[in-house]
Amino acid sequence: MLLEKINSPEQLKQLPVEELPRLAEEIRRFLIESLSVTGGHLSSNLGVVELTLALHYFFDSPRDKILWDVGHQAYTHKILTGRREAFPTLRQYQGLSGFPKREESEHDVWETGHSSTSLSAAMGMAAARDLKGEDYKVIAVIGDGALTGGMALEALNHIGNEKKDIIVVLNDNEMSISPNVGALHNYLGRLRTHRHYHKVKKDVELLLKKIPTVGEPFARALERVKDSLKYLVVSGVLFEKLGFTYLGPVDGHKIDELMECLRQASQTPGPVLVHAVTVKGKGYKPAEEDSVTYHGPGPYKIESGAFIKKPAKGPNYAKVFGDALVRLAERDPRIVAITPAMLEGSKLTGFAERFPDRCFDVGIAEQHAATFAAGLATQGMKPVLAIYSTFLQRAYDQVIHDIARQNLNVVLAVDRAGLVGADGETHQGVFDIAFLRCVPNMVVMMPKDENELQHMLYTALQYDEGPVAVRFPRGNGLGVPMDEEFRALPIGRAEVIREGSDIALLAFGNMVPLAERAAEQMVREGFSPRVINARFAKPLDEALLLQIAEEGIPVLTLEEGSLIGGFGSAVLEFYAEQGFHDMVVERLAIPDRFIEHGSVEQLRREIGLTVEQIVQKGCSMMPRKRRRA
Amino acid sequence: MLLEKINSPEQLKQLPVEELPRLAEEIRRFLIESLSVTGGHLSSNLGVVELTLALHYFFDSPRDKILWDVGHQAYTHKILTGRREAFPTLRQYQGLSGFPKREESEHDVWETGHSSTSLSAAMGMAAARDLKGEDYKVIAVIGDGALTGGMALEALNHIGNEKKDIIVVLNDNEMSISPNVGALHNYLGRLRTHRHYHKVKKDVELLLKKIPTVGEPFARALERVKDSLKYLVVSGVLFEKLGFTYLGPVDGHKIDELMECLRQASQTPGPVLVHAVTVKGKGYKPAEEDSVTYHGPGPYKIESGAFIKKPAKGPNYAKVFGDALVRLAERDPRIVAITPAMLEGSKLTGFAERFPDRCFDVGIAEQHAATFAAGLATQGMKPVLAIYSTFLQRAYDQVIHDIARQNLNVVLAVDRAGLVGADGETHQGVFDIAFLRCVPNMVVMMPKDENELQHMLYTALQYDEGPVAVRFPRGNGLGVPMDEEFRALPIGRAEVIREGSDIALLAFGNMVPLAERAAEQMVREGFSPRVINARFAKPLDEALLLQIAEEGIPVLTLEEGSLIGGFGSAVLEFYAEQGFHDMVVERLAIPDRFIEHGSVEQLRREIGLTVEQIVQKGCSMMPRKRRRA
Repeated sequence: MLLEKINSPEQLKQLPVEELPRLAEEIRRFLIESLSVTGGHLSSNLGVVELTLALHYFFDSPRDKILWDVGHQAYTHKILTGRREAFPTLRQYQGLSGFPKREESEHDVWETGHSSTSLSAAMGMAAARDLKGEDYKVIAVIGDGALTGGMALEALNHIGNEKKDIIVVLNDNEMSISPNVGALHNYLGRLRTHRHYHKVKKDVELLLKKIPTVGEPFARALERVKDSLKYLVVSGVLFEKLGFTYLGPVDGHKIDELMECLRQASQTPGPVLVHAVTVKGKGYKPAEEDSVTYHGPGPYKIESGAFIKKPAKGPNYAKVFGDALVRLAERDPRIVAITPAMLEGSKLTGFAERFPDRCFDVGIAEQHAATFAAGLATQGMKPVLAIYSTFLQRAYDQVIHDIARQNLNVVLAVDRAGLVGADGETHQGVFDIAFLRCVPNMVVMMPKDENELQHMLYTALQYDEGPVAVRFPRGNGLGVPMDEEFRALPIGRAEVIREGSDIALLAFGNMVPLAERAAEQMVREGFSPRVINARFAKPLDEALLLQIAEEGIPVLTLEEGSLIGGFGSAVLEFYAEQGFHDMVVERLAIPDRFIEHGSVEQLRREIGLTVEQIVQKGCSMMPRKRRRA
Repeated sequence: MLLEKINSPEQLKQLPVEELPRLAEEIRRFLIESLSVTGGHLSSNLGVVELTLALHYFFDSPRDKILWDVGHQAYTHKILTGRREAFPTLRQYQGLSGFPKREESEHDVWETGHSSTSLSAAMGMAAARDLKGEDYKVIAVIGDGALTGGMALEALNHIGNEKKDIIVVLNDNEMSISPNVGALHNYLGRLRTHRHYHKVKKDVELLLKKIPTVGEPFARALERVKDSLKYLVVSGVLFEKLGFTYLGPVDGHKIDELMECLRQASQTPGPVLVHAVTVKGKGYKPAEEDSVTYHGPGPYKIESGAFIKKPAKGPNYAKVFGDALVRLAERDPRIVAITPAMLEGSKLTGFAERFPDRCFDVGIAEQHAATFAAGLATQGMKPVLAIYSTFLQRAYDQVIHDIARQNLNVVLAVDRAGLVGADGETHQGVFDIAFLRCVPNMVVMMPKDENELQHMLYTALQYDEGPVAVRFPRGNGLGVPMDEEFRALPIGRAEVIREGSDIALLAFGNMVPLAERAAEQMVREGFSPRVINARFAKPLDEALLLQIAEEGIPVLTLEEGSLIGGFGSAVLEFYAEQGFHDMVVERLAIPDRFIEHGSVEQLRREIGLTVEQIVQKGCSMMPRKRRRA
């Protein structure tokens, strides 16, 4: 095994270049085996084995800075930089992160998770380098999907203008997570298939030399043509127009070609774009054939590719959303669905099949997605933007400025709200309650289970007084019975699930089941807890809150979201406004730090969002009762 | 006067086309005169008089949808749609808005303020149109500055793919507010100067016909060239590559040329980009010569262009920031400045002159600006991102994901925080405290006056444990003496300005002077108020808050920011966490709705952020004392 001897880029460079394809195969085998146990981003990592080898063989990391856009394709990079043995802990609590992490290695110079950030960061590093008079190389590896994100395009515009030495490696696999869409994608497709462009360029030079000089006005025309052709007859003209030298397309699985291309790139002054064509899932048949399914699979059987699934209690939340949306759209032709490149993740494939004209996958473009929805709403459509909580951060101004300020009927289906688990810090959906709640006109709700999710979606689509956010968690529901008919829930009204007179457990969304279990335990300890399914973080159920205040019982708020500015803060604010200055309100929520990767269970334990913690906190709030008991 | 007879697009269409240039001159005269009294966005509006006339003459608004990106150039549109007589109230409290407003007119189909939203909205409208089987035209007018905003590029990518009938009018005046920068801008510059491209295209056709057929391999080469040239020899190739038909460039001040171009555009299926070249400030010499200064001037003398300035008490806050940054950068070569197209607004022109290599105007690209800053910080630079509060919304994910999560030393100089006045709803900087406070690792501060601003900037640059936001208001300071030497303020420590034992007025930033005046009045009424300059919204001065709690005096928090989730909520949260459940805390802040345009004074009166309101609220919180008095 070559692989066992390679624990740093220096050791890699000791190998003769002819050995690299063998090493690539070993790495591929290692990834397929390792991920079959732990799960992880299989397809994208199999696609960049040779590219990563070429980068580390040719460049000098960490002196040269290699940035991995999105970052879930950095496994080979991790292997080559001394982390191979940590792979059994991949994406597990306190184990190896699935993304670049600066604290893990000096070779991880830039942390990622969300897409399209690497070009801006590369520009920052290159600018710092030049100001400090240093001379390292800066290389950003970005997928064709991530390239359509607005900030990547903003960065291209800046880099192309400033003319700094930056190498952008476009890892073109025709995929982000779903197959890519968009004009840029179409353009790349033409580049890929028009490899004879290089040849054309040479042909034109030949042509121009051979054309006989003829009389006016033909000669003048010819001159103009010559002038223009030097701009025009190049492949990658779009990138050339933006100030880049374009190299490629190159086969991203041929190490010698890649190396030659990187050599050219490193000798070319100014910004260079290397167009490498790769295959997602390369070398593992099930993943090559269905790279979407194998984008981020759980454990699987190597031979067949079959998944080893843990039994789930209920259906997937996103699936419940997607199915309900199809049923609702059958009845109402105004309903349309929008996804920023998460058609599968948001379980909209069924919707897209049933209503191809009413489903818009806009690519990785969260800002555009939100304002596109707003535009649809101005014309009386009922757009539903399916978006993960953490990616909604990228459309924040659009939610404020375009949707809420114009008070348009846009439904935000905020998926993966709360803790998401293995993807870690960059993907936890913990801020949405806080950042949406302060936006005027917004309604913010979260269901206690998957049955309530379908009713909330229905409620949001019935509501015609402005935007509504329905947040729901990642993963599976509770397995509760699903109502056949949709039911509209009254806006701003909570649901009392258990009556009680000692404390009110005011739970938002997926904290309701925990509150119920905590209440049962409290009862066993002699207390009488009331359990409330808050349903709405905005507007609050003011009548219910006032009633609690009048009864004088303490309130414990529960939410899987930021402690700062969240649902609990809304309750504090309400009581302060109403002049109930002696109300006892305590809050359990996500503390003020970024939450790492691990299972949701483990993370909840770490931050104290557990039944035990609710019981303990709740009991501490009922001292008189306790003394009485 | 033709103008007096034109109060609708229908009346406009009654005019013979030959009269339009005369009408344009009348409108120009009207704008110059009207804005000389009220102030307003002069340069950009003078630039689009003919373009607006052509659009309303050719299209059929409101059936056809005309969208104005940014929207501050819609004055001629307002004049032509029945709002000429309201111009004396422009940008004044309850007067005509400076931006499109749907409640003002059925012709305002899309509200703007922030840039780069119109293409996404146009795509939404076009998609709605096609789904409903309607057949109106959708026309988005977007400046070359706004086109570099990431979301506009995301929209181009989507529109170019979907092939819907949309007309994008690129209003190319080489300016956003400052002169434009970026590779796209350079590209447009080449288009403007290469008007012979059209001719080239014809020449090439001629050429291809005339070339004699010669022997192999030349013939094969020629075939490939012919194949390729049909793609390549077009001007606007960049837009063509993205799926648009490119028309232009056309002189944006020649109505007949414009009309011909619009006619072509409306007959071309799929997305069309009309490249109109205009001159900002056209027809008013002072504005043509210095369109930056006349971008959004206050009142001026028509003859000379001289400004009629109201006497200000203190220096402009942004100017204090810009000057302080130059002095700090003299001492520390690691300091660099970044602006997203607001070099003048953020008063960084002095910095740019003194340190051209250390000042980066990245164009309208807030997301890139923030992550570019993060990239610089990873290499030990000290980036200061100067950004208006309302535009920081657009970089929210970058602040969370790239800056705060990596805990990088980036300073956010959050200008125009709080109420901004005449620009209205889209520009009020009211959410930043709420949306920044919930982000881990952030420090959030605001100075009580311009002298403290320079110390806070110094403090932020000294601090090396993570990101810092220094928010400061639009407009002028108080005229306080400026310290010669910078002073580092202790992080998370407030300043007691007046001792007192009946109530604590806990004021954040620009509310401190109001608190002081309110306190004086309270003293006259027999109370003993304590006045505290909070300085930090995060971290709070916990020792001081605990001391107040132990003394048992009520707290009134004051801030020019969102009532929901803001500084006052932080105080509520702190006391709840510490178990002080009987603390009396009340909050004065900006209520939960979008705040319209008007003077800051008027707006503060409307929402109750005044000395009188503080006195009234404060006195109501001290009942026992009042009874004693």
